[in-house]
Amino acid sequence: MKKLLTCIILSLFVFNHLKAQSQPTTVSMNKVKLEFMMDADGRPTYAIYYDQKPVIKPSHLGIKILNDVGMDSNFVVTGTEKTTVDEQWKPVWGEVSNIRNHYNQVTFHLRQQNKAGRLLDIVFRVFEDGVGFRYEFPKQNNLKYFIVSDEVTEFALAGNNKTFWIPGDYDTNEYPYTTSNISEINNQHMVNSSDDIAVRVAPDKYAVQTPLMMKTPEGLYINIHEAALVNYSAMQLHVDTSTYKLTASLVPDALGNKAYIGTPCHTPWRTIIVSNKATDILESKMILNLNDPSKIENTSWIKPMKFVGVWWEMQTGKSTWNYSARADTVGANGLLIPNGTHGGNTANVERYIDFAAKNGIQGVLVEGWNYGWEEWFGNWKEHVFSFVTPYPDFDVDAITKYAKAKGVVMIMHNETSASATDYERQMDTAFRFMNKYGYTSVKTGYVGRIIPRGEHHDGEWMVNHYVRVAEKAAQYHIMLDAHEPVRPTGLQRTYPNWMACEAGRGNEYNAFGHGNMPEHETIMPFTRFMGGPMDYTPGIFKVQDFTILPGKRVHTTLVKQLALYVVLYSPIQMAADLPENYEKYMDAFQFIKDVGVDWDDTKVIAAEPGDYITTARKEKGTENWFIGAVTDENGRDEVVPLDFLNKGTQYVATIYADAPDADWKTNPEAYKITTYIVDAGTKLKLKLAPGGGAAISIKLTTADTKGIKKYK
Amino acid sequence: MKKLLTCIILSLFVFNHLKAQSQPTTVSMNKVKLEFMMDADGRPTYAIYYDQKPVIKPSHLGIKILNDVGMDSNFVVTGTEKTTVDEQWKPVWGEVSNIRNHYNQVTFHLRQQNKAGRLLDIVFRVFEDGVGFRYEFPKQNNLKYFIVSDEVTEFALAGNNKTFWIPGDYDTNEYPYTTSNISEINNQHMVNSSDDIAVRVAPDKYAVQTPLMMKTPEGLYINIHEAALVNYSAMQLHVDTSTYKLTASLVPDALGNKAYIGTPCHTPWRTIIVSNKATDILESKMILNLNDPSKIENTSWIKPMKFVGVWWEMQTGKSTWNYSARADTVGANGLLIPNGTHGGNTANVERYIDFAAKNGIQGVLVEGWNYGWEEWFGNWKEHVFSFVTPYPDFDVDAITKYAKAKGVVMIMHNETSASATDYERQMDTAFRFMNKYGYTSVKTGYVGRIIPRGEHHDGEWMVNHYVRVAEKAAQYHIMLDAHEPVRPTGLQRTYPNWMACEAGRGNEYNAFGHGNMPEHETIMPFTRFMGGPMDYTPGIFKVQDFTILPGKRVHTTLVKQLALYVVLYSPIQMAADLPENYEKYMDAFQFIKDVGVDWDDTKVIAAEPGDYITTARKEKGTENWFIGAVTDENGRDEVVPLDFLNKGTQYVATIYADAPDADWKTNPEAYKITTYIVDAGTKLKLKLAPGGGAAISIKLTTADTKGIKKYK
Repeated sequence: MKKLLTCIILSLFVFNHLKAQSQPTTVSMNKVKLEFMMDADGRPTYAIYYDQKPVIKPSHLGIKILNDVGMDSNFVVTGTEKTTVDEQWKPVWGEVSNIRNHYNQVTFHLRQQNKAGRLLDIVFRVFEDGVGFRYEFPKQNNLKYFIVSDEVTEFALAGNNKTFWIPGDYDTNEYPYTTSNISEINNQHMVNSSDDIAVRVAPDKYAVQTPLMMKTPEGLYINIHEAALVNYSAMQLHVDTSTYKLTASLVPDALGNKAYIGTPCHTPWRTIIVSNKATDILESKMILNLNDPSKIENTSWIKPMKFVGVWWEMQTGKSTWNYSARADTVGANGLLIPNGTHGGNTANVERYIDFAAKNGIQGVLVEGWNYGWEEWFGNWKEHVFSFVTPYPDFDVDAITKYAKAKGVVMIMHNETSASATDYERQMDTAFRFMNKYGYTSVKTGYVGRIIPRGEHHDGEWMVNHYVRVAEKAAQYHIMLDAHEPVRPTGLQRTYPNWMACEAGRGNEYNAFGHGNMPEHETIMPFTRFMGGPMDYTPGIFKVQDFTILPGKRVHTTLVKQLALYVVLYSPIQMAADLPENYEKYMDAFQFIKDVGVDWDDTKVIAAEPGDYITTARKEKGTENWFIGAVTDENGRDEVVPLDFLNKGTQYVATIYADAPDADWKTNPEAYKITTYIVDAGTKLKLKLAPGGGAAISIKLTTADTKGIKKYK
Repeated sequence: MKKLLTCIILSLFVFNHLKAQSQPTTVSMNKVKLEFMMDADGRPTYAIYYDQKPVIKPSHLGIKILNDVGMDSNFVVTGTEKTTVDEQWKPVWGEVSNIRNHYNQVTFHLRQQNKAGRLLDIVFRVFEDGVGFRYEFPKQNNLKYFIVSDEVTEFALAGNNKTFWIPGDYDTNEYPYTTSNISEINNQHMVNSSDDIAVRVAPDKYAVQTPLMMKTPEGLYINIHEAALVNYSAMQLHVDTSTYKLTASLVPDALGNKAYIGTPCHTPWRTIIVSNKATDILESKMILNLNDPSKIENTSWIKPMKFVGVWWEMQTGKSTWNYSARADTVGANGLLIPNGTHGGNTANVERYIDFAAKNGIQGVLVEGWNYGWEEWFGNWKEHVFSFVTPYPDFDVDAITKYAKAKGVVMIMHNETSASATDYERQMDTAFRFMNKYGYTSVKTGYVGRIIPRGEHHDGEWMVNHYVRVAEKAAQYHIMLDAHEPVRPTGLQRTYPNWMACEAGRGNEYNAFGHGNMPEHETIMPFTRFMGGPMDYTPGIFKVQDFTILPGKRVHTTLVKQLALYVVLYSPIQMAADLPENYEKYMDAFQFIKDVGVDWDDTKVIAAEPGDYITTARKEKGTENWFIGAVTDENGRDEVVPLDFLNKGTQYVATIYADAPDADWKTNPEAYKITTYIVDAGTKLKLKLAPGGGAAISIKLTTADTKGIKKYK
């Protein structure tokens, strides 16, 4: 890591009268400018501009403390420090192999003008693509342990921005996105009608989740989120629909408190990413840069991969997670009577292992392998699952041996039914079991109401729980894929074994839920993915006519499912459909076999939230490029220049395109695969069907290119 | 175990009209009679009589379910079953070596007269010393998992009983007792003034804890408590001071809910012990009988014992738990700077080991041995202590070796600061550490506000936590002494490694608190001890002039401290004072060396709550008897016939008596030791000083009795 650190202590002085407080301090980088000032009441205030245009108008900052004087006013600045950092670092895995961390930092040291004289630092980092800031509470005699009752951070937007939002909810991020102006935000209907989400607790109708994506009337793209969420509850935003002011709203615990902390400490970073180009938002590394470096020293065991799994067949009704009809369906011998539809049985698992081995897919996930699924959901029960006890028809010894012989790794599944206390009790035992049987990854799940009861998925206690799981997993050299956790905030930099989260509306809602509309995947990268990878489970080829669930369907073409492997970044990617469905389209499946999961470089070629995204990525350690293009419900013609290829080099491009008559509604599974010689001068002309996409693999020309035409 | 089981199915019929509901069913044993009937609204109703006198007037029964129809009315009886049980069983340790469990049981099968037709069984067990009853929810289609929002069990007392009560409080049982009539109960002043109790959460001013001891105007003794508290929150009693009706009031969780259960299930037993003799209340085994037999098969490793410990010296200010002044008192090397007053240091611990070894005391407890004590209290912090990291001056290897060489066992201390979630995370590691270093017992502590935040010490989640700790400890062959848990309900029968609890106002309040008045120990056996043993920490010889704490003192004579080893039953008993204080009175300390901790037999010779108790116990496996007599602030002359001794056998009795001029206030440490030959015909004349007592050891005559006079 190359680190250029310039530390300039600008001033360390005390204002003696409030008049001095009105002098703003300015810190810029390229087009991004931060202004900081104290208002007449001693309230810290900031504003952000992009290219002289206001992004955030003067907005107040501060923290409220339970049963104590608020840390939000009556302050004076006692000193200011400025620093510039320009460094490079290499993620263990990621969208690029090298990340530049370049910012101008300013720290304002504040002291409260009362007897306690409490100290608060506010630290801003100004990047070329936005601003991050956080509150830091120095060690001080008059403030040790305290309870945050509220955070009053404001984001006073400059206009009635177009916004891509989901309801603020303490327990879920799995709502579909609504596109509306700020003035029109009201989550009530969405919350009430989303009966496909198990637990919904929305604080009020003007609450929205972050990452919140916006576009100003002037065409600026703004994204508000947070980075490095630890020891604090998740930030939601409360919307004032008339003034366009957003205010931080923290997820409460059972008692309504927001965080329990003690000095010295700091909050997570509040992030505002801004650019006049939508593609810049997707390429921003600001959130990762605001996270701490890896706490795991030896990362050699952390390996991105693709996997298949016994899962979608349960989602679509071909089989079940549970082994028996009910927990009390027991025979005279006291044993559970099999229901005959249990998916996680040895023979079926071996079928998936065979498919994975045959097609070079590294991993096999099995859900419903362990006791507890008969009465697992909705009972708010403390102990539901054993994480070391397979169902009678899941022969863990035999499966372990079979997978090993076939060169496939098994992926563990630990659904906790949101009983986090019980999972913490069993975690060591569970991870030792994984070590014993050679499982190198675990998919966790938190479906239901949280235990400790009264806590929420996105509250401080659970925020720390997910980190504890990642840390404990790391001790056992296990990679983590957490479903239904708080949405990510870049912690994958600090815990690179935390490969992915769900924490968003995945492909599965096309099965059991009200579905994901074609625009969904053109919004997700601007929202949910801003914080980190998602286990979206793409790759559904049989997009309708599921075993059960009449009328349910995937709202894309088959080709768009391929494109998602590139557009939706994750170091673990599931090929989510059933082997028998892939076997009907093995030429299309070739793309999933080929596509990378770890990258040296990424270029977002075209993007507009809610409309389309086209992304090209260079596979790590190779010269292979993969392109994914997705569109919303409208078809789209697009030209993709391949100018990122090495000059003067010939490549073979395989283009997986929607058939000319393809349409997500009427003809979703129609596709056409063509192969061409391409080079850096090539401009690919893509035609995306309504709800469709395009997927392209580009490889260095091999010896045998005879018969392959040059693209023109 | 001898088991005589007579099962008589009396009737299985359905009442067709409410008129039939008014026929009471009666079940009796000796003087105790239960009546059960359904009132006109289909509410189950019971009454209890003793010798024809009403103890509990007709009182309603039932459970309220959250967001559902209450299970408290609209019932009909669909069947009644009666059974008689008369069996004997042997506790692993206890006040007697053989316990008779003899009761008449009646089960009422109820069905609700509505569409759901829910089923509820109410089971009564009528003993010769009282009644236990519980609610049983059979497996049924229309009731699976549910949340108890309230229990409406009533105890309509027949009169304005004299009552020995402490405030109902969700988090503590450590209040001093108030003696008043029911009509005068009001806990407000006591709750407000008890600033010596760290966490106090009293639901309302008419709430009292159980065990609740009462005496009727007619002289009947009544005790209300519960047995086998698991999977449910603790029952408190709400007092109607005008009607004398008590109503069950369950401790809520963070959301106000009382219990999360699922059919088939049952509540704990509600117990009413009654007799016209106070001594019968103390000798009752009803609560133990209502608990399940031991779940631990091999109990050979469970061993009652006496112990000393590095503890009282911290309570009295000679030394400190913490090693450093503050958590941030660190030197240039980053290590804590010692404060010079740390009690748990190797040299000091070895001093206690020496004292224990020299005097045949089996165990040595050390508090403040592990990291975390600098900021342990009152911060509501999730992670405070490491349970495997000794302070730098506590050489665990050396101490382990030293203790082993001296034949002494070390007792572990795990103060959790009430962060139960964190303790559950560390428990396996902590117990493995104990196994490694040969610790066979652990004293746990729960000082502070509970985490999970919003839970209470006496709520369902914590109730189950304590059981989890006992179960986990048993897996590691570790005995448990839990401080600040819910008060016991006889679970020591089921988990015989759960030796004792604090859960009451111990001797320590004479140091840091407002003290325990002389009557305190004459009430405790009738209240706190009804559920099980308490680690009261008797044996303070230096009753005043502590290192710090001016004006604080123990409110007894020295001799009364000796008597407590017999009067207050526990299979683990601390000799709580400092070695240097014992060394001044080694002739008196001889009683502590001699006294048993496990018993073949117990005779309560005289007792009146609030006034006096005299108890004789026969040490297990020997012919030695020990007698303890305690009185309140009034002196007392008492005659104790030794008719329980073997007829025609001579014993040597050593009598530890208050000196003639002894008085807890003015001359507490004056005592006189005399030795006599006694036999079954002897009638000992004891003179107890105000706040005093007497302690007597009686052993079979040895060869050398020359010079010992016969008692007359």
